[in-house]
Amino acid sequence: MNTVHHGVVSVDWIDGKVRFIDQTRLPFEEVFVETGDYRVVGEAIRTLRIRGAPAIGVASAFAMVLALQEEGSTDRDALHRTFTAASDYLSKTRPTAVNLFWALNRVRVRLEECLPSGRDAAINAVLTEALGIQREDREACRRIAEYGAALLEHGSTVLTHCNTGALATAGEGTAQGIISLAARQGKLQRVYADETRPLLQGARLTAWELTRQGIETILVTDSTAGFLLKQRMADVVIVGADRIAANGDTANKIGTYSLAVLAYHHEVPFYVAAPLSTIDINTASGDEIPIEERGGEEITHIRNARVAAEGVSTFAPAFDITPNKFVTAIVTEAGILKPPFSGSIAGMRQMIKGTQG
Amino acid sequence: MNTVHHGVVSVDWIDGKVRFIDQTRLPFEEVFVETGDYRVVGEAIRTLRIRGAPAIGVASAFAMVLALQEEGSTDRDALHRTFTAASDYLSKTRPTAVNLFWALNRVRVRLEECLPSGRDAAINAVLTEALGIQREDREACRRIAEYGAALLEHGSTVLTHCNTGALATAGEGTAQGIISLAARQGKLQRVYADETRPLLQGARLTAWELTRQGIETILVTDSTAGFLLKQRMADVVIVGADRIAANGDTANKIGTYSLAVLAYHHEVPFYVAAPLSTIDINTASGDEIPIEERGGEEITHIRNARVAAEGVSTFAPAFDITPNKFVTAIVTEAGILKPPFSGSIAGMRQMIKGTQG
Repeated sequence: MNTVHHGVVSVDWIDGKVRFIDQTRLPFEEVFVETGDYRVVGEAIRTLRIRGAPAIGVASAFAMVLALQEEGSTDRDALHRTFTAASDYLSKTRPTAVNLFWALNRVRVRLEECLPSGRDAAINAVLTEALGIQREDREACRRIAEYGAALLEHGSTVLTHCNTGALATAGEGTAQGIISLAARQGKLQRVYADETRPLLQGARLTAWELTRQGIETILVTDSTAGFLLKQRMADVVIVGADRIAANGDTANKIGTYSLAVLAYHHEVPFYVAAPLSTIDINTASGDEIPIEERGGEEITHIRNARVAAEGVSTFAPAFDITPNKFVTAIVTEAGILKPPFSGSIAGMRQMIKGTQG
Repeated sequence: MNTVHHGVVSVDWIDGKVRFIDQTRLPFEEVFVETGDYRVVGEAIRTLRIRGAPAIGVASAFAMVLALQEEGSTDRDALHRTFTAASDYLSKTRPTAVNLFWALNRVRVRLEECLPSGRDAAINAVLTEALGIQREDREACRRIAEYGAALLEHGSTVLTHCNTGALATAGEGTAQGIISLAARQGKLQRVYADETRPLLQGARLTAWELTRQGIETILVTDSTAGFLLKQRMADVVIVGADRIAANGDTANKIGTYSLAVLAYHHEVPFYVAAPLSTIDINTASGDEIPIEERGGEEITHIRNARVAAEGVSTFAPAFDITPNKFVTAIVTEAGILKPPFSGSIAGMRQMIKGTQG
């Protein structure tokens, strides 16, 4: 039931364990990890073996089931303490993607509702909720793809950044879900995939996923975007998101902001595709979103080989913030949000609250 | 006589041979190549062992001496034919950098002037001209640095792209010459160096050169530029050039155009630093500049290791064109050119013609 079109299942629940594909080893090796230890899941999120905001949400919800399973006691306080400790641990793995906190909150609510009925009922409820998060994300991807593909004209050439496909979600993807559906609909001419330094998610993951689907995919260095847009070789930009503030400001992979300014300057539509779970109505604007800074070795080394001169310092923010003014529309499973986003997002407040438990 | 401040001599004439450092092996190995074969120099230019528009000019002039030395005949027609064949060969190594054609033209003029005086006189004249090109470029770098550093305010933080230092020139560099002098003058706070994909000239060469000079150098991925400029972490952008058209449109390393649009959008000055030999008054605008496209393996592989998924296509332009509207000023050895560049460049026409023989 968990197969997705042409894709792999990035994170799944199988026989009481979490199973995930190690995305750091793709596309060279397809290594699946099965674990009963929530810490292994947390470490996989921290090290980007599991990545992509929606996939992180699903993985962290499953990890909470593992934490409860590990706690042998039937004592409610003990279970609650174990849950809180594991949740705190997981919440520290990546600070920017809001889906992590959203998923942890959803399973916490269910735990607290069901703990009075005992250990087994509580674990079952948390597992059911985690599976629900996975199923809903798959369905959200499907609807995002439909809404998004409808925005594209026949013969579209899309520029995308990072990876937003099956690996990053529980379904066919967000931005890439749109690309894949548009390809099946015959609307897509080709995709330009930014390689997405430093960790090359575009070169490794997006290129791998899209070429497997038979989609014409052209890999470019990140700094080629200006050239492509100036020549109109790409006529639309679609990206995912790690967190969207209540005003539409969007945190996404480093380089997204540069791309957004370039799209704006060249009058090319810039679409953000994300499930409602990525919208954080408690964050007023992008200024409030913490930006994760990662280790410099992600820049100075590639595949364990040093590529930079010794002694140089580094600055490696993992994300940047794209102010709402550069976003043409946000594609969600509930429809297209248009500017002014403060209004359109507020209009979905009840639905978003619903998804946020 | 050929040492430069803290730097290496990228290309030199020693004991009747050309000696160059293999820039593809830096910073990991310092390998110098000595050759009496102009084809080896040409191949080194084609494969970027020798790179940087001014250094390419110097190397190609020296290579023409090698070609004449190789021709044993004293027959003037034979010498002229040999010269033309070698010049044609060298002119095909890189299509964008105009310094190559400019240098080949300069030595050709001297050859034709001196051939009537015989083989030895002609070879001597060509060698003298090549050494003159080298000496003039060193002096041009010195003056570019002085003019450019005067543009910077105390405490400047500079963002630069690709490599424009001693490796790319016969002197201390163009954009990097400005950076180095500003550092010695105590005006420079720090430099952000774009890693410059695909061939990582920033990570490998610029970081190597600047850290050797004790300059605080922060390596960033190319797509971090928007973030840096938005946060005003960098308050000026300085780049080099491979060819500047008569209207100021500038061809430079891929990614320069993206950087220029970002600087423009953030109202950060964007300076191009280049000797007059880089200005091609016979090219009316950037539309006429041929853009070299390089092999896709430069994107799909890094240090001989595959980094991209199999089966993906690539698009790898080596350069892009920055329209003059994005250029705040062009720093040359004869002073600062300001917009409108058609006028300021025309005003230097006699000097440029002078340098172009």
